[in-house]
Order: sequence, then structure tokens, then C-alpha cells
Amino acid sequence: MRIGELSRRTGVPVPTIKYYVREGLLPPGELSSPNQAQYGEAHERRLRLIRALLDVGGLKVAAIAEVLGAVDDPARPLHKVLGAAADRLGPAGDADDDAEAVAASAAVDELIARRGWRTHESNRAAADLSRALAAMGRLGHGAFTELLDEYADAAELVARADLGYVGRRVAVEDLVESVVIGTVLGEAVFNAMRRLAHVDASARMYGADGAAAVGGEGEAAAT
Amino acid sequence: MRIGELSRRTGVPVPTIKYYVREGLLPPGELSSPNQAQYGEAHERRLRLIRALLDVGGLKVAAIAEVLGAVDDPARPLHKVLGAAADRLGPAGDADDDAEAVAASAAVDELIARRGWRTHESNRAAADLSRALAAMGRLGHGAFTELLDEYADAAELVARADLGYVGRRVAVEDLVESVVIGTVLGEAVFNAMRRLAHVDASARMYGADGAAAVGGEGEAAAT
Repeated sequence: MRIGELSRRTGVPVPTIKYYVREGLLPPGELSSPNQAQYGEAHERRLRLIRALLDVGGLKVAAIAEVLGAVDDPARPLHKVLGAAADRLGPAGDADDDAEAVAASAAVDELIARRGWRTHESNRAAADLSRALAAMGRLGHGAFTELLDEYADAAELVARADLGYVGRRVAVEDLVESVVIGTVLGEAVFNAMRRLAHVDASARMYGADGAAAVGGEGEAAAT
Repeated sequence: MRIGELSRRTGVPVPTIKYYVREGLLPPGELSSPNQAQYGEAHERRLRLIRALLDVGGLKVAAIAEVLGAVDDPARPLHKVLGAAADRLGPAGDADDDAEAVAASAAVDELIARRGWRTHESNRAAADLSRALAAMGRLGHGAFTELLDEYADAAELVARADLGYVGRRVAVEDLVESVVIGTVLGEAVFNAMRRLAHVDASARMYGADGAAAVGGEGEAAAT
């Protein structure tokens, strides 16, 4: 198809498609004449993936380029590609070494030991978790660590569901892309659902009459 | 304290602090002489909150300004302030109206009815959930909706834990800020924990010998 048709099908404006090609997010179309490029279903699918990572996942264009680069490189072993994808997905930043950072890191180590979670040195998720808890500690919410096991119960539920879903998919060429989709969009799904559950929990806690009034409150009611 | 001391305590460079003041994120210090401003504990705390929303929560400066503006306006009823905060936290964007959007919206309505969740018309979370599911549907992952009840079980667990934590805090002046912290940083906590749980679930599924090999895989293993 021509670029206009690709634009029509995906709802992405032509100049934006050209920008993605320039930035290396989308492979160029095949030239059918010096001024005419043809695009296929792979382009359409890739374009939808880019838009989902951008619009729903909130990733920046540079981060998407790196994730897709790792997905596309056939020379890299699958687990390295997936590791690279995950590395790009977590928040970036340096570890601090103040008292809150030390306490948060210890709390994460204890959690992992207590749950018997298997992990590995290069797993960025443990560091990300420590950073979030340390930031809470600095804001006077060190007691949030009391909720870690309840969060862990919930995380195990979701992880088991995710892995079961992955297990039902067989094509390895889809697997890497599926993991990227699931990690980014799965987070958006869970985060929205958590806010829905907050409204419900808040309405139940403060009574039916207060449901409308505390609705806006419950919408964000968390810590 | 002077701006240098505020910078030293929080690790935020002086030019960055001045930028936050210019952007309205941080109130200006009190002038003790024409060239000398004094900052207090409230500035230090606000600065830590800004950095947490930025670094851990991944919010943009403009979004933080709007969230903090709603937190600071005493004329607005609490539930409206909290509603505004939540509105700023979810992903922005228009609803689409293709087949996937219609199917996703129906799946969300059915989920809410099936769980008996109380909600209200203005709850943005339902729309955010629909958007994430519609994006998955467009990428060939419409079957992800099969996981919705397992995700909902997990979301209810987390919401109950969050509300219990909020209930133990009494000061209303802390409540709004706490809800913002909990919504943004609580998401970062859960998302990191989900990735940790993926590694563990993946190691258990594919066996101990494969733990190291599938570690990087499990790190992101989701959909």
C-alpha cells in the first residue's frame, strides 16, 4: 500500500509516519518507483505498536527506538533482547545512598528472601522498587513498606496470569513483541484497574451515600 | 535556610530549584534582603515531592504543576482536588471508535458489572482501561481480556491495602499530598514488583536450571 493508505488505516498522519522512518522506528517502505514507496502489513503492525507504546505506555520516542532495536536484532539471544527491552521500560536514574535508600534496599532484599522469589543480579526491577520506596521514605511515607506483602500477593497473581497467557502463544517471532506489549500495556491495564478498585473500596468504606462525594477522592485514594 | 543549603539537603542543583520557582512548582523563598531569599521545611518537602513525581513517577513538569496547583488551592473541595489530581495522572488522549474500542469498552462495562464495582460517570480510570485494552486488541492481543478477572482480583487486594493505609493517617492537610504520592509512587512500586514476580514465575515454570537463562526473559515476560 502507499503511505496515504497506511496513514488512513492506522490514523497516523503522513508527516508523523515519515518522522518515525527518519528516527529509525519504522523501516522505510520498498521503492516501487523513485518517488513511490510501498508499505506492507508489517509496517502497519509496527506502526500500531509504536502508537501503543507512545500513547498508552507513555514511552518516549528515544526509548521506543531502543526497545524496537533490541526486538529487531536477530543476532542477539532471546533472553538478552528481552532483558534489554525490560531495561528500557523501567524508570532511569541513579541509586542514592542516603538512609532512606539503604532502608528501602534492605526492605526489598528482605521481601525477596521472605517470598522466596528467584531473581538475578542484573534484574533492574529490584533497584526500581528500592528507588520508589526510598522516595516515599523521604516524603515521610516509610510506613508504606508495611504494605509490601499485600502488593507482592497481588503481583504474584498478575504474574501467574501473564505467564499462563504467554504459554498459550507458540510463535517465537511473536514472543518478543508480545513481551514488550504485555509489559508496557499490561502496566497501563493494571494501573487503571487499581484506580477503579480504589473508587469501589472507598465507596464501600465511606458508605453508599458518600459514594458520589468520595468518588473523586477514591479515584486517587491510595497512600 | 538559603538556596544553597536547600540544594545541599535535597540534592537538587540551585539552577533547577530556580527553574521550579519560575514554573510555579515551588513557592518563592521569603526575601530576607533584596538579594537573599530564605527557604523553610515546606520548601524542602515540596522539592522532594516534585523530584519523586518527576524521577520515580515519570510525570512531566507541566503535569506536576497542574497536580500541585490543585493540591494547593484551598478553595476547592477535597474531592474535586483529588479528582483533578487523578485526572492529571492518567494518560491523556482521545477515545477511538473502531471495532476494538467498542469491544474494549464493552469488556470494561461487563467487568465492572460482574465485579459489582461502584463507580461514577466521571471516573477516567474506566476510559483509560478501555484505551489500553483497545490498543492490545489492535495488536492482535484481544484475548488478553481473558485475564481481566485475575487482574481485578489483584487490583482489589492492592486497593484494600492502600485504603487501610490511608485510614491510619488522620491529618487532612497531609491527605491530598498522600493520595498524590500513593497514586504515582504506588504505581511505580507495583510495576516493579510485577516485573520481579515475572522473573520468579518464569524461573519456576521453566525450571531451576533455566533460571539464569530465562531470567532476562522473565524480567519482561508478560503478555
